[in-house]
Amino acid sequence: MGYKSDIEIAREAKKRPIQEIGEKRGISNDDLLPYGHDKAKVSQKFIDSVQGNKNGKLILVTAINPTPAGEGKTTTTVGLGDGLNRIGKKATVCIREASLGPNFGMKGGAAGGGYAQVVPMEDMNLHFTGDFHAITSAHSLLSAMLDNHIYWGNEQNIDTRRVVWRRVVDMNDRSLRQITSSLGGVSNGFAREDGFDITVASEVMAILCLSKNLKDLEERLGSMIVAYRRDRSPVFCRDIKAEGAMTVLLKDAMQPNLVQTLENNPAFVHGGPFANIAHGCNSVIATTTALKISDYVVTEAGFGADLGAEKFMNIKCRKAGLAPDCVVIVATVRAMKMNGGVAKADLGAENVDAVKAGCPNLGRHIENVKSFGVPVVVAINHFVTDTEAEIEAVKTFVANHGAEAVLSRHWELGSEGSEPLARKVVEVAEAGNANFAPLYPDDMPLFQKIETIAKRIYRADEVLADQKIRSQLKEWEAQGYGHLPVCMAKTQYSFTTDPNRRGAPTGHSVPVREVRLSAGAGFVVVVCGEIMTMPGLPSKPAAETIRLNDDGQIEGLF
Amino acid sequence: MGYKSDIEIAREAKKRPIQEIGEKRGISNDDLLPYGHDKAKVSQKFIDSVQGNKNGKLILVTAINPTPAGEGKTTTTVGLGDGLNRIGKKATVCIREASLGPNFGMKGGAAGGGYAQVVPMEDMNLHFTGDFHAITSAHSLLSAMLDNHIYWGNEQNIDTRRVVWRRVVDMNDRSLRQITSSLGGVSNGFAREDGFDITVASEVMAILCLSKNLKDLEERLGSMIVAYRRDRSPVFCRDIKAEGAMTVLLKDAMQPNLVQTLENNPAFVHGGPFANIAHGCNSVIATTTALKISDYVVTEAGFGADLGAEKFMNIKCRKAGLAPDCVVIVATVRAMKMNGGVAKADLGAENVDAVKAGCPNLGRHIENVKSFGVPVVVAINHFVTDTEAEIEAVKTFVANHGAEAVLSRHWELGSEGSEPLARKVVEVAEAGNANFAPLYPDDMPLFQKIETIAKRIYRADEVLADQKIRSQLKEWEAQGYGHLPVCMAKTQYSFTTDPNRRGAPTGHSVPVREVRLSAGAGFVVVVCGEIMTMPGLPSKPAAETIRLNDDGQIEGLF
Repeated sequence: MGYKSDIEIAREAKKRPIQEIGEKRGISNDDLLPYGHDKAKVSQKFIDSVQGNKNGKLILVTAINPTPAGEGKTTTTVGLGDGLNRIGKKATVCIREASLGPNFGMKGGAAGGGYAQVVPMEDMNLHFTGDFHAITSAHSLLSAMLDNHIYWGNEQNIDTRRVVWRRVVDMNDRSLRQITSSLGGVSNGFAREDGFDITVASEVMAILCLSKNLKDLEERLGSMIVAYRRDRSPVFCRDIKAEGAMTVLLKDAMQPNLVQTLENNPAFVHGGPFANIAHGCNSVIATTTALKISDYVVTEAGFGADLGAEKFMNIKCRKAGLAPDCVVIVATVRAMKMNGGVAKADLGAENVDAVKAGCPNLGRHIENVKSFGVPVVVAINHFVTDTEAEIEAVKTFVANHGAEAVLSRHWELGSEGSEPLARKVVEVAEAGNANFAPLYPDDMPLFQKIETIAKRIYRADEVLADQKIRSQLKEWEAQGYGHLPVCMAKTQYSFTTDPNRRGAPTGHSVPVREVRLSAGAGFVVVVCGEIMTMPGLPSKPAAETIRLNDDGQIEGLF
Repeated sequence: MGYKSDIEIAREAKKRPIQEIGEKRGISNDDLLPYGHDKAKVSQKFIDSVQGNKNGKLILVTAINPTPAGEGKTTTTVGLGDGLNRIGKKATVCIREASLGPNFGMKGGAAGGGYAQVVPMEDMNLHFTGDFHAITSAHSLLSAMLDNHIYWGNEQNIDTRRVVWRRVVDMNDRSLRQITSSLGGVSNGFAREDGFDITVASEVMAILCLSKNLKDLEERLGSMIVAYRRDRSPVFCRDIKAEGAMTVLLKDAMQPNLVQTLENNPAFVHGGPFANIAHGCNSVIATTTALKISDYVVTEAGFGADLGAEKFMNIKCRKAGLAPDCVVIVATVRAMKMNGGVAKADLGAENVDAVKAGCPNLGRHIENVKSFGVPVVVAINHFVTDTEAEIEAVKTFVANHGAEAVLSRHWELGSEGSEPLARKVVEVAEAGNANFAPLYPDDMPLFQKIETIAKRIYRADEVLADQKIRSQLKEWEAQGYGHLPVCMAKTQYSFTTDPNRRGAPTGHSVPVREVRLSAGAGFVVVVCGEIMTMPGLPSKPAAETIRLNDDGQIEGLF
C-alpha cells in the first residue's frame, strides 16, 4: 500500500520552534525552559500565574481491553487533539513519557502513530528532558541514605529484614531483581536482601505524577514508608531525612514538558507511572496547567477502561479535584474481531459476526464509564482493512448501548480524519451532561472499596482474600490510611484476572494475592496476579541492532 | 571581613542568555542546543564546520600536590580565562563536569570560587545537561545485555567468575560495592558476584572524554573488555553487540556544554573522568573545539602536576594530538606552609621559613613540567592573609628554578586581579618556546613506561611489582596493547605512594598493587595503593539538610 512508517512520518515533521508552540497557549519565551529547539519545560512562575483562569473541558481517552490487534489509544488522543484545534478549539494533549529501558528490549514506540503523533519521537524514547533520570537519582539517594543510616548506627532501629524500599534503575535488567547487598565486610555495611525495580515502578514516579506542587511533592516523599522496625512500626522517608534533597533533585522534573503534534499543536508529555502498581496517568500538574490555558484538554489513561479509566477517575480525579466532561473509548474493528474469537492472522478478512460477537467487551466499558456520571463517545480508530459492514456493526451496537460511535481516520489523514470525532466530542462535552462522581467515597473501608471495583467494574461475584490480607487492610485503617483509594494491579487483557478471558465475562472471582501501601503516593495497591516490576530483555534485544547511521540518524530503535 | 560566599556571588551573577555567549565564539543560535537559558550543547555540525580553523594557544593549569589548605586550581583556570579576555584575547575555559552523587555526602563545590566562577552553579552540581545520566544509562545497558547474554545461553562462553564489567550508579552508595546478583531462581539468571562503582569511574566516561567523534566513540566502546572466557580470552563489548545502542544513548552527551563565567566569557564544561583510575581531564572534543574558535584555551587537569599534568601530557595530548603552549602551576602561600610542616590551624600567622621549607614541592613540579618541553608560569593564588614577605619568598624560589611566579587576585577581584597573570601567560606562550613531547614513546614496554614515570616524575628509586603483574603486562603486550600509555592510580597528596610524605621526597619505592586494562579508553591502569571507586556517605550526609526554601532556592547544597 505504500504507507509510511511512524518514524518516517515523524522525521518529515515540519516542527516549529517550541517558543511558537508555547505562544499558542500564552507561554512566553521567559517561561519556557528550552531543551533543544523542540522541547521545553514550563516554569512554575507561569503555572502560578494562570491559577485564576477558568478550566477548559477535560476529555479522557480510554479503550477496550487491549488485544494484540492494537487499539491506538495514544494515536486517537493525539488525533482528537489535532481535530479539536482544526475546528477552532484551543486543545492541548496530555500524555505520559516513555520509559527508556524497555526500548532496548523490544523496539521503541512512537507517541501516537501515522499522522497523529507527538514529536520529537527519538528524544521522547531516549533521555527526553531527563525526568526519569531525576526520579532514578532521587530514588537512589534515598536507597543510599537508608543503608547509610543503618551503617552508621541505625538510630531508627530499622529491622533490616523489613526494608521495603527497593532500588530502581531505568533498564530491563532481570539480574538485579533479587540481590544481596552490603557484602564485603565491615566497611560496606550490614548484608541484606535487596532488589531493583524499573524506574517507572518507583513510588517517587507515582508521587511526582500526583503532586500539585513542590511543597506537596516534598510532603508526600516524606510520607513514604521505607522499612519497619522490629515492633512493626513504619519508618518513613522523613525519618531518614531524605525528602528535602529528593525534592531538590526533582525540582525540574516536576515542571511539565511541552512538545508538539505533527500539526504543531501543543502537547504536554509528563510523567509515566506504571498502570498496574500505580495509577498510570500523566502528571496532575500537566493536566491542571493545561486546563487553565486550553479550551480542551485531551488526556489518556493506561490499559483498558477497567484499569486505566477506573484509576483516572478514582485516583487522579479524586486527588486532583478533576472532573472529565466526556470520555472517548477507543475501539477498532480488528480488536472487536479478536474479542469475537478471530486469530490475529485472520484479521484481514471481513467477519461481521465476529465483530458483533466481540462488541460486548466494548459495551461493558461503555456502561462502566457511564456509571461515573460521564458521557461516552466511542472512537472507531480506522484501519484500512475495515469494511463498511464491520464498521456499521460496531456503530449499531454502540447506539444500542446509549452512546454514539464515530469513525476516525486521524492515523491516515491527521486532523482532517479526526474532525468528525472532534465535532462529536464538542457536542457531547458542551451539552454539559457530565455529573462526575468517583465510584466509592473516601470513608468506605478498604476491603469494600476493592469489592466495589471488582463487582461494579469487573462484574466479579466475589473477592477472595485470606485473613492475613484482610488484617493488613484493617491495620492500615487503624493507622489512618483507611481513607485512601485502592489501586488495582491485575492483568489488562481481561475484566477477570485471567488474561485469556476476553469479551465480557461474569461470575468470576478476584483473588487478592498481596496488598501494598504506597503511603506517599496515597493509595493501597491491590495485587491480583503476577505483577512484574523489573522486565528482562529478550534473547535478541532490540539494542543489538540499534545504532547511529552515517547520517547521524538512529536505526533500529523503531 | 565580610566576604561573600561562592554561592552568594554565583546567585548575584548577571548571566547573559547563552546565545549571546555562543555568539562570542561564532556559534549561532541554530548550532546551540539550549538547556534552559544559561546552558547549551554545541552541535556536531558546528564542530565539523570549524575543523579547518587554526588552533589557538593551549594553556594547562595544574598545581602542586593538594593540601587541606586549598590551592584553587579551577578558580585560577577561570580567573586566567577572564584575565585573558580582559586583555583582548578570545579565551575559552575548558573544565570538567561535577559528579552528582558526592554532593549529597559533603557539600557540593562551585566551579571556581569568589569572583572567578563558572555559572549556573546549582545546575552544574545537579543534573546539568544530563551527560552523566547518559553515561550511567549506556553503562547499565551493557551490564543488562551482558547478563542477558549469559541468561539466554551464553553463546560467548563467558566465564561468569571472570566478568570484569562492574555496574555503576551516580550516587555514593557503599552498600552496592559488593553484591551477589541474579538470585531468585531460573527466571532471574545465573547467580554471580558483582558490584557497583560510581559513574565517574566508568570506562564509558573515560572513553567519552577521549573520543574525537561519535564514530571513534562507538569503536572504543566496542573495544572494552567486559569478561573473559575459561580459556582466558577476552570478551569485548562488541561481542555483546552493545556499542551501537550505547552510542545512541551517548550522542547528546558527546556534545560539549557551553556555559559562562561570572564575567560572561564562554566556558566549556564537559566530561569528568576519575583522576586516578582514569586520566582526569575534560573531554577532548571540548578542548579541540575550543581551540578552533579561540585565541586561548585554558584547561585544567586533576590533582597535582605529578598525576594530572603527567596524564594530560602522556594520555590526553598524546591521543588527541594536542601540545600545550604554556603550563600554569598553581601554588598558594598557605599550601607552601603546609608543605613546610605548618598545621592547618596555624596557617594564619606569617611564617616565611615554613614557606621556604615547603617550596621544594613546587620546585619539583616546575622541573617535571619543563621536562615535557613546555614553559612554566607559577600562579600564586592570593589569600588575604598572605604577607608580602611570604609572597616574595615564593617568587624568589621560583625565579631560582627558571620560571616566574605571578601573584593573582582573581578570587577577590575577578579579571582585574588576574590581568598580570594573563599578561605573563601571553608573553610566555607567544614567545613560542614550547617544544612539547610526551615523556615516553608508544613503543616502550609497559613496565618501562611505569618506571619512567616513577623515576622521572615521582623521583622514586624503583618500581616494585610481583611476577604476576609483570606477566600480565607481557601478556597484554603480546595481545597488541603494548603501545598504550599507562594511567597511574596513586595518592594525590604526595610524590610517593604515602599520602603523608609532603615536600619533595626521593629514594622511595613505588609498589604496584594491580594493573587493569582499559582497552576501550586506551590505557593500562597501574594501581599503586588503595583506590576507592565507590565512595560512601558520612554519618551526617549533606543530603539531610539540603532542601528548597520558600523562594525556591536550594539550601544546604553549598
